[in-house]
Amino acid sequence: MPEAIKIGLLGLGTVGRGVYKILTENAASIACKVGAPVQIKRVLVREPGRKRGLEIEPEMLTVDVNEILDDPEIKVVVEVIGGIHPALEYALAALERGKSLVTANKDMIALHGRELFAAAETSGADLLFEGSVAGGIPIIRPLKQCLAANRIREVMGIINGTTNYMLTRMTREGCDFNLALEDAQAKGYAEANPAADVEGMDAARKLAILASIAFNSRITVNDVHVEGITRITSRDIAYARELNYVIKLLGIAKETPEGVEVRVHPTFIPVTHPLAAVNDEFNAIFVRGDAVGETMFFGRGAGEMPTGSAVAADVMDAARNILHGVSGMISCTCFENKPLKPVGLVECQYYVRLQVADRPGVLASIAYAFGDKEVSLATVLQKHTNGQNAEIVLITHRVQEQNLQDALRLVERLSSVNEVSNFIRVEGES
Amino acid sequence: MPEAIKIGLLGLGTVGRGVYKILTENAASIACKVGAPVQIKRVLVREPGRKRGLEIEPEMLTVDVNEILDDPEIKVVVEVIGGIHPALEYALAALERGKSLVTANKDMIALHGRELFAAAETSGADLLFEGSVAGGIPIIRPLKQCLAANRIREVMGIINGTTNYMLTRMTREGCDFNLALEDAQAKGYAEANPAADVEGMDAARKLAILASIAFNSRITVNDVHVEGITRITSRDIAYARELNYVIKLLGIAKETPEGVEVRVHPTFIPVTHPLAAVNDEFNAIFVRGDAVGETMFFGRGAGEMPTGSAVAADVMDAARNILHGVSGMISCTCFENKPLKPVGLVECQYYVRLQVADRPGVLASIAYAFGDKEVSLATVLQKHTNGQNAEIVLITHRVQEQNLQDALRLVERLSSVNEVSNFIRVEGES
Repeated sequence: MPEAIKIGLLGLGTVGRGVYKILTENAASIACKVGAPVQIKRVLVREPGRKRGLEIEPEMLTVDVNEILDDPEIKVVVEVIGGIHPALEYALAALERGKSLVTANKDMIALHGRELFAAAETSGADLLFEGSVAGGIPIIRPLKQCLAANRIREVMGIINGTTNYMLTRMTREGCDFNLALEDAQAKGYAEANPAADVEGMDAARKLAILASIAFNSRITVNDVHVEGITRITSRDIAYARELNYVIKLLGIAKETPEGVEVRVHPTFIPVTHPLAAVNDEFNAIFVRGDAVGETMFFGRGAGEMPTGSAVAADVMDAARNILHGVSGMISCTCFENKPLKPVGLVECQYYVRLQVADRPGVLASIAYAFGDKEVSLATVLQKHTNGQNAEIVLITHRVQEQNLQDALRLVERLSSVNEVSNFIRVEGES
Repeated sequence: MPEAIKIGLLGLGTVGRGVYKILTENAASIACKVGAPVQIKRVLVREPGRKRGLEIEPEMLTVDVNEILDDPEIKVVVEVIGGIHPALEYALAALERGKSLVTANKDMIALHGRELFAAAETSGADLLFEGSVAGGIPIIRPLKQCLAANRIREVMGIINGTTNYMLTRMTREGCDFNLALEDAQAKGYAEANPAADVEGMDAARKLAILASIAFNSRITVNDVHVEGITRITSRDIAYARELNYVIKLLGIAKETPEGVEVRVHPTFIPVTHPLAAVNDEFNAIFVRGDAVGETMFFGRGAGEMPTGSAVAADVMDAARNILHGVSGMISCTCFENKPLKPVGLVECQYYVRLQVADRPGVLASIAYAFGDKEVSLATVLQKHTNGQNAEIVLITHRVQEQNLQDALRLVERLSSVNEVSNFIRVEGES
């Protein structure tokens, strides 16, 4: 068997530990599959003396990144530090030196994908990032290879485990947002500052990566319309159930004749939709292609071993390519430049919840206001009437976002309407 | 851009038409992704004059396979004839001439995988067969690459669309096996002779392929314990529902300390299991790895365009490898030789349905017989009592198959037991 392919690991946090364990424990079968042993030579850490619950020889650890970047024997650099700086500088330096780069860093790829790919193409190195989206679930390689013959029409995913865990609790137990958040924090699913998760930015970064690959056109996180789950109440969850839907935070990307739409927001989906059964901290990505039809990829979207599994697989591919002298064979696939669709032109159904005066003619005036903006109603429920006030819940037919917003402004001004309490998009009807 | 990579297509049936359409309609983006155009040069058919609902130049068609096999310009041969002969002879001839082979032929791969891989390795060609299992769902490449760093513990799949469609109808509408079969035949999901589907052999072939890759050890269709769905009655389906299960025909492969178990049979799975929501003609494969945990791959398991999608993706990979001179880089992964576990040692829970005399002490005598063979009972239901006879349904705790069979023989001999009506394995409890 040929000599070992040597790896440099940047970071020994959660994912780094997973990668180390997998490449060490499964070394024998990994060597058989790659055609050569894959061996971690050096690991960049901040505090070499720290306890890590990991058997690792102290001489492998270094605090000096150049011991990895400048080591010609190291052919693959694995970046699992996270964040933008100094991860980006290290990644670019590795690529510029012709080393293949494997990363699980969604922030870096979503924001700096273009320059990273340019560096990889210049030096002919591999740039692999399966672990950056949906942890252990294979989705980058399936999109880039397995479904490559398709024109992808739509990607729709539960790509944030924290919010899926929270929404699952809210759905199962009827608890409210704050309690669900506290529980997610206690379980370690949510960070002390949960903003990136609950406000949708984490999902937006992953969606930008998925959409870029799906549509062969660079989409950055700034292109994504983002709404989080902070305004979802247990009331909305209860109505969803009554109407045979569940609420999920979805990343949705579609190619339409008017351009590409990319958005992250809480969404009503029918209970019969494959994504509706994806609960707890699990992730899943639903993909529709012109040839394959509907497919879905399900699994754990985060964690030491699941994300480690994705990173280790990328390391194996990078090592195999080095062995055969074909690094960089599958590079950036953004060879098109597709326009974005303005969010006002996005079309879907909407759930709307209103507080109104409980008197004759109110429903008629509301229906009239919606109709005036060409919004037609599919379902109307009136509930919680107390003689003075009532709650109206309705689901519209498909309508453009701008018409819906115009209609809501009109409805809000009606004297009989006290409040537009919420509106939530509805997706996934066939 | 480099010159086109030329393809020879053997067969223009359902899948062949799909491959032709995809490679033609999506030619531009396929060329960008591969790095060179991918062009079908010649197509082997039996009747060149036949109407096909396809725009294809008559001079591309040939009835002589040697016009493809002997054409040095053709670098990739796509075998979508199906069956063993002459597909196998053509496939071997193509590989021996150094051409890469793409096939969707599960029968051929499950029975002759070893000699096909040997031929591919000798000539250094690619042998790709994503379309042979679960149609358009990416599963071969995910197992070979994306999850390659894992030690796979378990593969459990709905890999026959016909029987899944039938069981879905039986579950939703309470209809019986024969009606469900007639309906599947009317819809074109089941063939006039449905034996391969309903008796489980189709699933067994696919399971042999999946298990070989998952466990890095050659498993043939003859190693698979196979039971079909012919003995599933609407009564069993109703009890499953009452007990919070659904019945699916599963292909199950597990690695255990006592060896690899591979089996196809109808199975009770909890309604909360990800596979339980996979309905109609859809397929899904659930995979458990030591690092990634639980993952699932869902989609259409058959049909012109879905299977065409998988075959076309393989063609793209083969073409890209030819372009870079690295065909055969990922070859046979059966580098281990794992023992099979005898079916008597397989452990799971069981559902058992019995017809008994309706008199005091019967349940006690049955429970005693089970206990005598170390089978302990988790759930017991007694139903449909008419004063003379009753039906007893029970679910056992985990038990070895041989003990369950011994217990059933004992129970059958009890004077109070009229009949053991059915027993069905239970899987998927966490």
